Formats: sequence, structure tokens, C-alpha cells
Amino acid sequence: MPYFDAASTAPLHPLARQALLSALDEGWADPARLYRDARRARMLLDAARETVAAELGARPDEVVFTTSGTQANQLAVLGALAGNHRKGRRFVHSAVEHSSILHAAEQHEASGGSAGTVPVDSLGRVDPERFAQELLPGTALAALQSANHEVGTLQPVAEVAELCAAAGVPLLVDAAQSAARLAPPAGWSLLTASAHKWGGPAGVGVLAVRKGVRYRSPLPADDRESGRVPGFVNVPGAIAAAVSLRAVRAEALRLGPQQHARIDRLRAELPALVPDLAVLGDPLRRLPQLLTFSCLYVDGEALLGELDRAGFAVSSGSSCTSSTLTPSHVLAAMGALTEGNVRVSLPDDCTDADIELFLQVLPSAVAAVRAQLEPSGPAGAPAAAAAPPDALVLDTLGRRCPIPVIELAKHFAEVPVGGLVAVLSDDEAARLDIPAWCEMRGQRYQGEQPSQRYGPDGGTAYLVRRLS
Amino acid sequence: MPYFDAASTAPLHPLARQALLSALDEGWADPARLYRDARRARMLLDAARETVAAELGARPDEVVFTTSGTQANQLAVLGALAGNHRKGRRFVHSAVEHSSILHAAEQHEASGGSAGTVPVDSLGRVDPERFAQELLPGTALAALQSANHEVGTLQPVAEVAELCAAAGVPLLVDAAQSAARLAPPAGWSLLTASAHKWGGPAGVGVLAVRKGVRYRSPLPADDRESGRVPGFVNVPGAIAAAVSLRAVRAEALRLGPQQHARIDRLRAELPALVPDLAVLGDPLRRLPQLLTFSCLYVDGEALLGELDRAGFAVSSGSSCTSSTLTPSHVLAAMGALTEGNVRVSLPDDCTDADIELFLQVLPSAVAAVRAQLEPSGPAGAPAAAAAPPDALVLDTLGRRCPIPVIELAKHFAEVPVGGLVAVLSDDEAARLDIPAWCEMRGQRYQGEQPSQRYGPDGGTAYLVRRLS
Repeated sequence: MPYFDAASTAPLHPLARQALLSALDEGWADPARLYRDARRARMLLDAARETVAAELGARPDEVVFTTSGTQANQLAVLGALAGNHRKGRRFVHSAVEHSSILHAAEQHEASGGSAGTVPVDSLGRVDPERFAQELLPGTALAALQSANHEVGTLQPVAEVAELCAAAGVPLLVDAAQSAARLAPPAGWSLLTASAHKWGGPAGVGVLAVRKGVRYRSPLPADDRESGRVPGFVNVPGAIAAAVSLRAVRAEALRLGPQQHARIDRLRAELPALVPDLAVLGDPLRRLPQLLTFSCLYVDGEALLGELDRAGFAVSSGSSCTSSTLTPSHVLAAMGALTEGNVRVSLPDDCTDADIELFLQVLPSAVAAVRAQLEPSGPAGAPAAAAAPPDALVLDTLGRRCPIPVIELAKHFAEVPVGGLVAVLSDDEAARLDIPAWCEMRGQRYQGEQPSQRYGPDGGTAYLVRRLS
Repeated sequence: MPYFDAASTAPLHPLARQALLSALDEGWADPARLYRDARRARMLLDAARETVAAELGARPDEVVFTTSGTQANQLAVLGALAGNHRKGRRFVHSAVEHSSILHAAEQHEASGGSAGTVPVDSLGRVDPERFAQELLPGTALAALQSANHEVGTLQPVAEVAELCAAAGVPLLVDAAQSAARLAPPAGWSLLTASAHKWGGPAGVGVLAVRKGVRYRSPLPADDRESGRVPGFVNVPGAIAAAVSLRAVRAEALRLGPQQHARIDRLRAELPALVPDLAVLGDPLRRLPQLLTFSCLYVDGEALLGELDRAGFAVSSGSSCTSSTLTPSHVLAAMGALTEGNVRVSLPDDCTDADIELFLQVLPSAVAAVRAQLEPSGPAGAPAAAAAPPDALVLDTLGRRCPIPVIELAKHFAEVPVGGLVAVLSDDEAARLDIPAWCEMRGQRYQGEQPSQRYGPDGGTAYLVRRLS
């Protein structure tokens, strides 16, 4: 049963499992105490810290263990902003950071700070010059991920770090997706990572703060982990995390090119096998093991269900699969199609046979979902409205993605070349997916209007001009 | 090698170890995803939550897993204060709460809130009526531990809960020390606990918030654990914690009376075996497995070292063993002697033979430390100062505990009955330990003055009148 969601979490590495078991026996005591078992726990914790620091290109006294990558990001953002408040209260970050960075930014803004968001191109990459433009006076911190967690695009961290250094702004690099696979990025002031993404246990993250970078804990005082992470330290977890990181990074040199080639094969063959499939992200400057694509006229959750039945575990950034009913902020920032979105992230033990099988399974899975999604009922019939005479109005109010795009495709031929279609929708995904459809189809997206200009109130009319 | 520091942390329970191993195989996936492994992780997490809720007297939807007891306390304090800010910004707590509660209170005060501290008696217990007096208008939250972590005294939680309910103030009960041993306390609005104290793994805490109690997360948004605990959930840890809690609580009925009797024996015999030893805390209304005592003329860290060499792992609230150089806030609030302080907390596998051995070992360990502590050098000689003619001045400025008390005891006979001794000290522990010495010796403590009234500037003169 191929597990293709390694970017969410990886099963415990065999060496980490062994280290965890032995550390449960040897490192269970409170490292702050003064007896033999405590001293042993402290030595094991020190050793774990040294290993992680060496793998991440940090000094041991720069590294603390957090309880997750999310906590590491929250602390890094809020702690560095508090420590650098004399510079100002502006926080600059890319539009495609992990949600933990964006939510920390929201809290910072809610408490009176400000934030500047650096846009990305259609491959999900920031432009260093554009990043530098946001480093206005008063900027206390900037954040840029090493690689994007949804589409795998590598960010120009070294260039941005140089520009940040020139501006006197500390740079936080969220290395959660790259820490185990690639050399540590250069130029960071703060670095974060998450152990369960490299085969370490859940409940362990890493926060590194370069000597000399100002930091003030946003949490109540606590003297553990250099005063940066409150609570009893999970020594066995830290040890297992360190052992796994060392093992996985030692394997990365060999595995990286293999994984890169497997993803290359998927990138090349999928669009030919599945009609109306768009591969997303940077084809070259990317993580070796990650691929994201979207499929027109497909409900993401239904596709995940089909793939699960076929034995494949993947994730999706489609709004249809999210509890928040909004599409992935990463895909939104890229202006990418969000419907039928699938992220494939290969585990270290992935085989060519798994890839072969996926190529066999996906076309029928997509076809099955598309077959189920023929819209029924009153939606889809052109609304009899006092609309401008040249517009075909498709009322999909109350219907969720991918229905608005399906309706558009189904009725598009009913207008002559040069004619206009107005899709009425109250689904957030339509704002992304209708322009993306136009791009894929070579039609002209003409923007949006309030829906009552064309029919019932309460939504938005997305206007598409037929070009061919 | 007897481990007598179970109140700090307990080794992983054998059933928890087994559950952890199996959960590492079965529950490693991301419970938020939509494939088979993810569904299984979600089911295991739900089961763990149900078990913990049942053992703590909560509903499953009231319980979230945190990353430590400390995090649970921080979130409980700051989240309940934020959720109840319409009541006001006052936070009332006992003087002997865990440091995580007190540090959260400090952060609350630093951000403009206020706090009211309820004192304790010499056994470490709050008086419910005194607690109620602090529930002034504007009180948004009160906190009272179920049992004290340093001296084991049980708090009158049920009575305080009734008074809080009458005042419309939610009550946070930190049950970290009692959760595994005693029935869950009644009347809590928020309850916290820590898994590694009951043989669960490090990195797992519990926060329960009663339905209807207002709570607003103080952390950046995150949709895991009901929006209360950001970060990837440690499913294997939660499962191991639940299994251990159930096992330990099932054993508690049988073990509790045995442990209670063992501590009774220590309480009865230690003062007879070791001169100048004071047993602290409530002799009856206490945790079954915990005992704290202090020894005059003993350096706590040196005593821990002696006991460690003899094979005993214990902890201490003496300032001499702390990185902060201040004595335990619990002992200070009780007005108890802090020097030579030892906390003994028995693990579940403690035997009568361990107790027997401790009774054999302690007297010689204390004697060895006392023998090393004969002060040498110029300190200890009465200062030739223009002091009031009836005062013997003992200049111990620059010397740490237990030297000031040792000096006092050594030279006390040099003043006649009715005479005055002034001990000059700049060590915080002296403020507690000199009055405690007077109490133990039946002498009169007459308060403190600036040291320059009696000799060199820069410290405090503690005045003792000889009565016998």
C-alpha cells in the first residue's frame, strides 16, 4: 500500500525506533536533577542537541527542542519580533509560508504589529528583489521557507538572506520540508524544522537562533531549553529525532536523485495520461520527492477517496477537502487551479513499481470522479434573467467546487466565439479556478462583478469571453 | 538503586511502553488526513481521549492533549483569562501553585492584568474562607492545585470550588500530582495534568475545559485539538499516556494505603534518627507517596550528592540546589526551613526494603554533610563594629546557605539569656531559615534591619533574642 504523503508525516525510522526504545530506558529522568539517572538524561539530551545542530549547520547552544515544527515557527516569529521590537513592528513573509507562520503573523497584527506579504510567481517562487522591496524601515523580522510544503518549489533563500542582512533584518527560514533532504540553507538568523517529517517521532521540533540574534520568549518564563520552550523536555523524543535526522541525511545523497527522477517521470507522463491535468510548481528548482497537480472537473475529496480505495495515501489542497472551505493559500497565491488538487510526496522507501502503479491507477480514479460529478438538478440551466443580451448566465449559487467550473465547461460551447459567459458562484474556489480554467483553455477571463448584475444576489459573477 | 523522585517524573509504565510501540506502528499517520492510515490514527486518538476523559471525570470533548503539564497550565491560565475578560482581569491563585501557573500570572500582570495571591498555613494549605476573600469583583479566574508538588499537602478544592461557583469565578485545578493517585477533584472548571508523572511518556499533558466555560486560545490560530493546542498531534504519546493512566489508577486503590504507611513511617522515624530535622507538610491530608523534610546546618546540594552516592535519587527545594539562588517559593510561603531540604516521592514499585535502607542511609549522609560544613576563614568571627552593646554581630555577608544558620547556632551560646544576636547576610535563604531556626529552637526571632546598622553595608541583619 504505497504511502505518498511523506510531506505530512513519515513513519518512525527504524533507527529512530531503536534509539527511542533505548532512550526510554536510559533517558527518562528529569535532566534538571542532580542524581545519576538525571545526569545520564542530560548527557543524552546534550548529545541529541549536538547531532541536530551539526546536521542543520548550527552551534549546539543555538538549538532548542520544541514540541512541534508549528510551535517552533510560532516561537520564532513572535520571539524574534519581541526581541527586535526596537527595529519596529513590521513582519515580512512570503505569501506561501506554512500556516503556522501566517497565523503567528495574524496574531502579531492583532496585537498592533504590521505584516508585509511578498507575492510569488505562478511556480510558487518569490523574487528576491520583490522581497527586498518589502523590507521597509521598521521591519523587525522576515521569513522565507526553504521549500514550499505544497508544491515543492525551492525559494531563493541565500539571495534573500543577503538582502535581509544588507537591510539589517533577521531572517527566519522554515526548513521543515528540506531539513532532511537538502543541505541546510545559508544565511538564516532563525531556523525551524519538524522531526516527524524526517522519520523522527511526533512531538519534537527544532528552533535554532543564531548567536547575536535578539530573541525574547513570548511565553511565560520557564528555565528549560534556554528559557525558550517551557515544559518538561522530551529527552527520548529528542534522541530519536537526532538519530533519524542523521540517518536520513546520510541517505539523502543517494536517494535524492532517484526521487527527483521519479517525480520527473510523473511530471512528464501524468498530463498525457489524464486530460485536463495541470502540474504545478517549479519543474527544476524543487524538492526531490514532491509533486502537486490539479485536475479540472474533479472534486478533490472524492479523488482522495478513489485513490485511498486504490491503496494510495495522498493529500490535497482543494477547498473541497478542507474544514475551512477555503482553498490552499499556496495555490491561491500562485493563481493555480485548486480543484482536483493532489500532492504526492514520496517516502524514502518508494520504489519505481509504486510510481508505475500510480500512473496506472490515477487515470481511472480521475475518470471515476468525473463520471460521478455530472451535475443534476436545476443548477446549470441558464437563468432567465434580465442580463446583458450577449451573456450566457450560469447560476451555480449554493454549489461547491468543482461544480462551477464543470458548468462553465459544459455550456461554454453554447455561446458564439466572442460571446460572454457569466458564472454566478458563492464558492471561494471559483475565484481561483475559473481564471485557471481560462488559462488552461486559452479563453479570456474578464474579471468579476456582483452576481445581481446577472441574476440572484448573494454571490459573484465570473465573466469569461469565448476566444475560440 | 531506589528512585525516590517520582514526583519529578516516572519511568515509562510497562503497559505504556507496549502501547507506545504498537501505536508507533498503528498511529503514526496524520489524523487530519483522509486515507486509511490517517483514519486509524484518528480512531486511536479518539480512544485515548475517551480513556483520559473517563479517568479524569471529564467528557471526551472537554479534553485536549497538550505537550506538557506546564503548557497545559499556561494555556489554562491565559486562555481562561482571555475567554473571561468581560468579568475583569484579576487572577487569584494560591501562593504554592506550580511555577508554570505563577509565571503565567506574571505574564498576565505584565500585560496589564492583576493577580491576587492566597497565602497558605505552615502546612502549605489554603484556607477556603481566605481564598474567597480574594475573589473580588473583576476576578476572571481562580487557580488551586489539587495537591502541592513539593510537600504533598492536599488542598480543599471542593470547598474552594463551591465558593468560586458562588462568586461566578471559574476554577482551574492543577491535578498534576494527584491525577494518577486520587479520585479526580470535584468542581473544576479547567483541569490540567501531566502524563510523565503517571508513567506516560514525556511530551504529553492534558487540558480539560468544562463545557460552558469560556476559553480563548492565547496562541496563534491552529485547528488541531479543538483549536487549543497548535502543532502536529503526538498520537502515539497520547495513546501511551492513556494506557498508563488507566493502569496506574487501577493500581492506586491497592498501592495508596501502602505508600501512605511508608511515608508515615518516614515521618515518624526520621526526626528521631537525624537531629535537627523538620518534617514539612500536612501529616494526614496529603498525597500518599510524598514527604518533604529539611535539615538544619545542611547544604541541600551536598546532601543530594551524598544520597546519590548512596544510591538514592531525590530532589530538593533548597536554594543551594537551584540555578536561581532563591529557595523554593512553596517553602517560603509556608515559612518553612529551606536548608538541607529533601523531597522524597515514592514510585509505584517502592518496597519496604527501600524505606528501611533510606532510614539507614540518611543519618550518616546528613552527618557527613554537616561535618564538611564547619565554616572556616574570617567569617564567623564577631565583627568589631559600633553595634548596639547588647548584640553579638555575626557577619556572614557573601556566604551562602546554610552558613548563616550554622554561624548562628555555633555562636548562640556566646550571648547570655536575654541577649541579642544579629546575623548579617545577603543570602535570600536566611530570610526564611533564621526564623525557622528560631521556631525549631524555641528562640525569639525579632525581625530584620539593614545590615549597616550592625556592620558592613549590603545585606540584612536578622535579629534573634536568646530566650533559653
